[in-house]
Amino acid sequence: MKVQTWEQVAARKRKAVLDSIPAEWIVPENLMPPESQDDVTTFPETSGWFTAEELAITNSEALELLPKLASGELKSETVTRAFCKRAAAAHQLINCLSETCFERGLETARKLDEHLARTGKPLGPLHGLPVSLKDNFNLLGLDATVGFVSHVGSPASADATLAELLQTKAGAVFYVKTNVPTAMMMAETVNNVLGRTVNPLNRRLTPGGSSGGEAALIAFRGSPLGVGTDIGGSLRIPAACTGLFTLRPSFGRFPTLGCRSGMPGQEAVQSVNGPLARTLGDLEVYCRAVVAAEPWNDADPRCLPIPWRLPTPAPTKLKFAVMWDDGMALPTPPVTRALRQTVAALQAAGHEIVEWSSKDQAQGLDLLNRMFVADGGLAIREEITKTGEPWFPDMQAYATAQELGTRDHWRLHAERQAYQKRHLDRWNAAGIDGLLCPTTPYASVENGKFRHVGYTGVYNVDAALDKALDMAAYQPMSEVDKMIQSEYHAEAVHGMPINLQLIGRRLEEEKVVAMAKVVLDALS
Amino acid sequence: MKVQTWEQVAARKRKAVLDSIPAEWIVPENLMPPESQDDVTTFPETSGWFTAEELAITNSEALELLPKLASGELKSETVTRAFCKRAAAAHQLINCLSETCFERGLETARKLDEHLARTGKPLGPLHGLPVSLKDNFNLLGLDATVGFVSHVGSPASADATLAELLQTKAGAVFYVKTNVPTAMMMAETVNNVLGRTVNPLNRRLTPGGSSGGEAALIAFRGSPLGVGTDIGGSLRIPAACTGLFTLRPSFGRFPTLGCRSGMPGQEAVQSVNGPLARTLGDLEVYCRAVVAAEPWNDADPRCLPIPWRLPTPAPTKLKFAVMWDDGMALPTPPVTRALRQTVAALQAAGHEIVEWSSKDQAQGLDLLNRMFVADGGLAIREEITKTGEPWFPDMQAYATAQELGTRDHWRLHAERQAYQKRHLDRWNAAGIDGLLCPTTPYASVENGKFRHVGYTGVYNVDAALDKALDMAAYQPMSEVDKMIQSEYHAEAVHGMPINLQLIGRRLEEEKVVAMAKVVLDALS
Repeated sequence: MKVQTWEQVAARKRKAVLDSIPAEWIVPENLMPPESQDDVTTFPETSGWFTAEELAITNSEALELLPKLASGELKSETVTRAFCKRAAAAHQLINCLSETCFERGLETARKLDEHLARTGKPLGPLHGLPVSLKDNFNLLGLDATVGFVSHVGSPASADATLAELLQTKAGAVFYVKTNVPTAMMMAETVNNVLGRTVNPLNRRLTPGGSSGGEAALIAFRGSPLGVGTDIGGSLRIPAACTGLFTLRPSFGRFPTLGCRSGMPGQEAVQSVNGPLARTLGDLEVYCRAVVAAEPWNDADPRCLPIPWRLPTPAPTKLKFAVMWDDGMALPTPPVTRALRQTVAALQAAGHEIVEWSSKDQAQGLDLLNRMFVADGGLAIREEITKTGEPWFPDMQAYATAQELGTRDHWRLHAERQAYQKRHLDRWNAAGIDGLLCPTTPYASVENGKFRHVGYTGVYNVDAALDKALDMAAYQPMSEVDKMIQSEYHAEAVHGMPINLQLIGRRLEEEKVVAMAKVVLDALS
Repeated sequence: MKVQTWEQVAARKRKAVLDSIPAEWIVPENLMPPESQDDVTTFPETSGWFTAEELAITNSEALELLPKLASGELKSETVTRAFCKRAAAAHQLINCLSETCFERGLETARKLDEHLARTGKPLGPLHGLPVSLKDNFNLLGLDATVGFVSHVGSPASADATLAELLQTKAGAVFYVKTNVPTAMMMAETVNNVLGRTVNPLNRRLTPGGSSGGEAALIAFRGSPLGVGTDIGGSLRIPAACTGLFTLRPSFGRFPTLGCRSGMPGQEAVQSVNGPLARTLGDLEVYCRAVVAAEPWNDADPRCLPIPWRLPTPAPTKLKFAVMWDDGMALPTPPVTRALRQTVAALQAAGHEIVEWSSKDQAQGLDLLNRMFVADGGLAIREEITKTGEPWFPDMQAYATAQELGTRDHWRLHAERQAYQKRHLDRWNAAGIDGLLCPTTPYASVENGKFRHVGYTGVYNVDAALDKALDMAAYQPMSEVDKMIQSEYHAEAVHGMPINLQLIGRRLEEEKVVAMAKVVLDALS
């Protein structure tokens, strides 16, 4: 067998993903937007390459499609085909896919159509809906490289537990997996296998990471609903960079087994998965579908037997804390403006707002970073070393970290437990329902310039309103803050959506969704 | 300051505990049973040292005392005083206490009596009930040595979270803490500080461990209800050795913060706490009381927001699996006889019984043992080394273990996750409600001969029925098994209670309690 360089392996993989797109879904050369075109979300409408039906389907929210799929008004095969085509286009314009399984999707869709015709009943709450998955969700026969060259060509032997549940109990249709940063441990979506995913709203900007391929695909409407994962912001950052809704649930609500991890067996900070969606309603329908399948019964022994509990009565007058910055990096001007306006709208609607000090944020981030590299970066280094692929500068910590012994790791656990208790006590002392803060310092940011994940909605950046700080007069919070403020160019992110983060108590996912509705109502 | 040897420190501590007993509760020399008397549970009735009222109170179940305490028919001070006296006697006969706080208990009791007189309402569901605590629960101003000489003289600065909840929300009264083995990591209750706790039912036998002081005290009726902890059998083994009921809950049901750990920050196997009680009803009232206080709200950020959910309808026809042995150590004859009779009674009552293979037990025990010593025993060795106290032979693993790096520990997590999933799949494939098996190979065992914790109730050993195996004909399962069977002497454990273990699904504590009722009904 000929030994291949990492470049050769990666190039073949990229070609294989492209080649997996049928000829009919290859965008004709003459329709391709020029490289200089930043916003490519207009492509489906303006190119003339999509039929009216394909546009109508793919522009619909999941909540609009689901009743039609359940009644048979729309065939799942038709809907799946339309999203396959739009996802294929997305990949050609923003490089967002890691794998395709169009045939599996169409086959699943046909079976669901048959099921409905035969029984008169939908299979489950997501009957016939195409759902995109982040690369690390194993699907039988597909790679899950999570950006490592070393994982190319080692197809999964079974579907991930969540995927199996979504398909067999909820009726979801899988057709693509989406790109991630190496090991899913960077805030931009770039790796040596598939390269960089860019933001469809502005290709000079990043869609964030690590669920960045997912967010970019959904923002392009190449998927009506997707599933990503989050350990330190990996759902929230891409949602923020692309103007989507996400829920970073508590560990135990959704099953996590059978996925490829960048750091297998790491449990000090639990990775979780959650939906990325265009609307809060779409997000909620996903949450209900997963919990309704009672994953604690048979899917995942670490899932908690907690049904989806609607807060009764629905919250009306709420008390929110607001944290304006994390004491390490000031949000860029559009983010602060969005937060100010949201706070004003909530106050106007009769909700109470109190200030939340950032005093504990730096220690939290420090704990997180120490737990991430507690193995001395060995798990990641092992994979990198296998093929000699180069390190990304953002992952230097994993290249140089010192491994902790178990004794020191236990000390780290004890430190984290004390931190959690202090946080709970602060929360209770404040008597708040939720905590509102930035998701990142950015609306989005130019590719390669995502500097800070210390935070982890809906506005648009306005270059006229959201001018950069006067750096001559500004005293930066830190070196990172100085870079962020200096690199902020209002024009570069003009028109981008701005997201905020709403934090609830552990295992109060339902209340967080309900509170998000309250915030949206106040803003509308 | 004069440097003390570990022997001097320990001797002073033992004396301090004895000296903390007021003169009125020191058993008169002439009433003390001779050292040769095995069963000392008869002492309170036969000695004449207790008043009729003291005997009536201390012989009552918690469920009998609680309504009287709540109505004011019995004063908490009276009840507390009676249990203080009986606990003091217990300590003098079986060496079961690690700390006393009689004054705190009487003061708490008086305040509760005043509260009831003033408001007409009990403070909570355990209003006025004395509750004993295992040594590792911090109580303000008391040591929590967990058997280490190094921890003598470092009193706690606050009550443990569970203790605070029990006292302030449920109305419990604390008056003693109970002895444990060093670091709570042996199956008999012995350490270099306070020495060995023996079984009040037969002082030649062990009450088990690590919650052995607790179990011994309750078996002597020196406490109506106690709280212990369990990581690998530490509630179940002592309950089995003393004929008590216990519940080893899933992690997250009861708060665990603010306790002294033998291995601080160890999270791969979570330590939990639970009740030790004379009846199933007493056990259930405790569980309800803790969960009713909603500890997830303010007590412990790792508690799960799951109320106490009664199974509806109450289970009638159940499917039990039975595991006769763990493939490593055959239960001694009385245990097997108890299990056989229970299975027959359940079948006669119309329940279904299937066999459960022990094929995964050895791997489970191996995983457990590797996680316990993953720090190379350093946490424990550090404490031992501080004072030079000698190692117990049963703790050799901690003296000689090699520390794992974090990378290898992550691999261990991954192995454990796979094991848990296989177990869940087996459980579901079998379609069972519960799993019935021995708790230990023993009913109880002579002091110093507890050999096996691979398993982790109500019968009595009958020396006539429960003869030892014919070792000439028996092919042992393992070296440990050979020792266990050879060392079994029916006469030595004659008359001891025999307990069994009923295992349910994770976080189905309520159903386990309901199923235990079904088993008891079938046996009665």
